[in-house]
Amino acid sequence: MDVISVIRTKRDRGELSPQQIDWVIDAYTRGEVADEQMSALAMAIFLNGMNRTEIARWTAAMIASGERMNFDTLSRPTADKHSTGGVGDKITLPLAPLVAACGAAVPQLSGRGLGHTGGTLDKLESIPGWRALLSNEEMLNVLDTTGAVICAAGDGLAPADKKLYALRDVTGTVEAIPLIASSIMSKKIAEGTGSLVLDVKVGTGAFMKNIDDARELASTMVALGTDSGVKTVALLTDMSTPLGLTAGNALEVRESVEVLAGGGPADVVELTLALAREMLDAAGIKDADPAKALADGSAMDVWRRMIAAQGGDPDAALPVAREQHVVTASASGVLTRLDAYDIGIAAWRLGAGRARKEDPVQAGAGVEIHAKPGDTVTAGQPLLTLHTDTPEKFDYALESLGAAYDIAEPGTAFTANPIVLDRIA
Amino acid sequence: MDVISVIRTKRDRGELSPQQIDWVIDAYTRGEVADEQMSALAMAIFLNGMNRTEIARWTAAMIASGERMNFDTLSRPTADKHSTGGVGDKITLPLAPLVAACGAAVPQLSGRGLGHTGGTLDKLESIPGWRALLSNEEMLNVLDTTGAVICAAGDGLAPADKKLYALRDVTGTVEAIPLIASSIMSKKIAEGTGSLVLDVKVGTGAFMKNIDDARELASTMVALGTDSGVKTVALLTDMSTPLGLTAGNALEVRESVEVLAGGGPADVVELTLALAREMLDAAGIKDADPAKALADGSAMDVWRRMIAAQGGDPDAALPVAREQHVVTASASGVLTRLDAYDIGIAAWRLGAGRARKEDPVQAGAGVEIHAKPGDTVTAGQPLLTLHTDTPEKFDYALESLGAAYDIAEPGTAFTANPIVLDRIA
Repeated sequence: MDVISVIRTKRDRGELSPQQIDWVIDAYTRGEVADEQMSALAMAIFLNGMNRTEIARWTAAMIASGERMNFDTLSRPTADKHSTGGVGDKITLPLAPLVAACGAAVPQLSGRGLGHTGGTLDKLESIPGWRALLSNEEMLNVLDTTGAVICAAGDGLAPADKKLYALRDVTGTVEAIPLIASSIMSKKIAEGTGSLVLDVKVGTGAFMKNIDDARELASTMVALGTDSGVKTVALLTDMSTPLGLTAGNALEVRESVEVLAGGGPADVVELTLALAREMLDAAGIKDADPAKALADGSAMDVWRRMIAAQGGDPDAALPVAREQHVVTASASGVLTRLDAYDIGIAAWRLGAGRARKEDPVQAGAGVEIHAKPGDTVTAGQPLLTLHTDTPEKFDYALESLGAAYDIAEPGTAFTANPIVLDRIA
Repeated sequence: MDVISVIRTKRDRGELSPQQIDWVIDAYTRGEVADEQMSALAMAIFLNGMNRTEIARWTAAMIASGERMNFDTLSRPTADKHSTGGVGDKITLPLAPLVAACGAAVPQLSGRGLGHTGGTLDKLESIPGWRALLSNEEMLNVLDTTGAVICAAGDGLAPADKKLYALRDVTGTVEAIPLIASSIMSKKIAEGTGSLVLDVKVGTGAFMKNIDDARELASTMVALGTDSGVKTVALLTDMSTPLGLTAGNALEVRESVEVLAGGGPADVVELTLALAREMLDAAGIKDADPAKALADGSAMDVWRRMIAAQGGDPDAALPVAREQHVVTASASGVLTRLDAYDIGIAAWRLGAGRARKEDPVQAGAGVEIHAKPGDTVTAGQPLLTLHTDTPEKFDYALESLGAAYDIAEPGTAFTANPIVLDRIA
């Protein structure tokens, strides 16, 4: 087996054999196949695709590159959720304790933000004392005692994917459906969950800009999960405008706690409940009522125990950015568009996100949203509040907001996109 | 300027801007753009192509990465030739002194063999004492005093191409016409020749397997040369069967000397004269008769002086391989096919070529050919003699010869391919 013949096969639009896939993933993980060879293969896959058989084998080979976890010792059925990433997407924070309060075990291995989409771990780290990094033993212990855990994935899980993802990030080969699907699913299958609900975002603030691409990604991932014995369902959900009224780290934690307290923005509550119902259904838990678990405080109880179990103080004051800047409405009328991507870029530039993996993030930075599409606004009223510890970044953030919203004549009819666009099982 | 936006432009079928091309070549040469990023870009170029404007700029940027040579101090017009590589292609050896004998200065910067095609420098190094590596000053001196020089290209010429070629070699991105054309032409234009004749090989033993690809490569290179002020002509020539009766290093030197002595195989003589006439015409030299220069010994005189000027002994006995193995005809009839690629692979496996750049080659190894397509053969007569210092390689070489030739019924009509298939100017 030699790497050039593998590259040539895909370059010339052939199908990679199971042997070629197993070999190239293993040899890349061991360092026998060099980065420059894998990136040429990744670009060939990007441009010439992989069929379902190839994607399944590619995923299996990445799983086989590392350890597999096992939750068989738990008394509860496991349910996990993965979002492809969006702006203001804090759903994991209220969702994990909510589903745990309804009877499932929720092992939520999460990531950090890169570019304009936020990262769940970055958000939780704005809670004083909270630790993302747990040993496997600690993770199982938190999961067993509280019903939910949100933590960083260990290095032992799908190391081939870890290496390949870092490579794709610097070689312009991120947005290929076969590579995205196998990357997500290799980690989720290796993690050992019994059921999985995928939140595949569609719109300007998502990786998938149109619904056809999102549907293909979703059905590819559902097939991969199902074929590996994981009960898998995908919801396609709207990401043309930010979720809720905040994009940022501490700002989103605050909003998540509002949802757990029975309040919070309607769209965040709606999507949290929709995903909770799918997770409970996939885990085989009947007769649970997630709306009740939000209303009666049982989800909040799990949240408090989960945060405390990872060293966090659920009662501590959250960090606030040192400086604020208010963006006002330029006209009176109906807000018909508030662009998710533009808001995400602004939050990132204010310090909520990072340009490189090793950069720190600001806990208090981000964007607070005062009006959502469909709302009537008056010229001069606050539309957005920008938060940062580095006020010299205001101008840079404002650059990305120049065409971030549209205001139509007063009285213009407006129909919002539904949050859940489609369901694939 | 950032490399990911450059990669994405080509990945998404866009046209690279002059600024993008200049930046990426310069940044790659300086090491700011990493190998894994350049190989992803090379694969995107391989699959999505470059237009003529992009190829011209890419070539210019590679030339600008290093020094340019200048032959203005020479009293004679300069003429150079480049072959895209084939099996038994020893043409440079008789051609350079022949064209010099007719009045041109021939600065022939050559390469080494890799894979199944031989390298001019490897062949000449089988002459005891001969040195491929000359300083720029030595090169000019040999050229000025003998009229011709065949030597290794210095490191200062198009260093971007040197780095990129080594990368393409290990990443399955060699056979792309824009990359081949810019690689060849950047070195030839930087070398400073006034005129250039390209021998673009077509057939099983060549990089271009069909005439349409060869024609596109040839016309791309002719346009690049012409636009840079180099008078450039291309001949498309047949490489379905080896040139002459030898493939190997010392074996091909011996055959070249036969041509210079007024003998040699008809196809080698025909192609040498055709290329000589094109070079003389491109250099503006009228009234020279290369056939006469072969017959009257004047080309041989230049050869002897040129070899001696680089430390070689033109009268020394050439190395002979320690072991021989004869392959006999399996039937009686007309030899209708003798495959260039299969013979090239056999010669390579016998030790005439190298698998990696740092490998040594055997001076005496190779294949001697006793019958060419069109010849009548008798079952059991010698068809090929294999030469090697490592007889344990005979079986490995014989493997590549299992389907290397066809013998048709006695009396079958046979029409040979013409040597020169087309001319592009």
